[in-house]
Amino acid sequence: MRKAALDRWYGYMKSHDPKALWDLLHPDAVFESPVVHTPQRGREITFKYLCGAEKVLGGAGFTYVGEWLSDKGAVLEFEKEIEGIKINGVDIITFSDDGSLITHFKVMVRPLKAINLLHRLMGEQLAKG
Amino acid sequence: MRKAALDRWYGYMKSHDPKALWDLLHPDAVFESPVVHTPQRGREITFKYLCGAEKVLGGAGFTYVGEWLSDKGAVLEFEKEIEGIKINGVDIITFSDDGSLITHFKVMVRPLKAINLLHRLMGEQLAKG
Repeated sequence: MRKAALDRWYGYMKSHDPKALWDLLHPDAVFESPVVHTPQRGREITFKYLCGAEKVLGGAGFTYVGEWLSDKGAVLEFEKEIEGIKINGVDIITFSDDGSLITHFKVMVRPLKAINLLHRLMGEQLAKG
Repeated sequence: MRKAALDRWYGYMKSHDPKALWDLLHPDAVFESPVVHTPQRGREITFKYLCGAEKVLGGAGFTYVGEWLSDKGAVLEFEKEIEGIKINGVDIITFSDDGSLITHFKVMVRPLKAINLLHRLMGEQLAKG
């Protein structure tokens, strides 16, 4: 089941279909950003941040370059270039016990320049609604 | 072999023995920091950065809280609090084909406050020699 949920995540990153993302999130899903310490709790806010991140980071040029697995989830490494700045990060995804839904989504990004850029772009994206 | 090398890494993080670290690094090892894009190439500079990072981050309060594996390596998630700031990061470790040595070591850290703190502390540590 975890493998199926991971494939659904990869599918969403290709389809950009918000409904596919919503259906993949556990009602108690938690999002942790590269910028702020405080976790964002609940499906709605997690959905909002992931949609925003997908709009800022996803699409042309976004590539997953690594995958590591554990019993509970996966770490996916990505690369993307925006405004001439190379962004390198990881999605740390935890699945529900039955492996069907995402319960926790944490993002880390390097280097410092890339975090500052994402901080600005995500702020602009979230302000749009 | 990869499991053995990973255990040697965990062992080093407990023993803090520089020789154990040196013996674990491939001659062509590469280090990538959370702060700067440009990779640091070679065993000597990788050793220097990892020793510095261990002095800044390692020791009391440093804890690994997650482990994910791939064919080639591992992602280890860590936590540490310094000066009241919670640091959360990952070590992304790649091993040589025979699994015995570290060929690549990449670190990412969140949130932004923690990166700025580490940037400053690592600068001070490396200046000490």
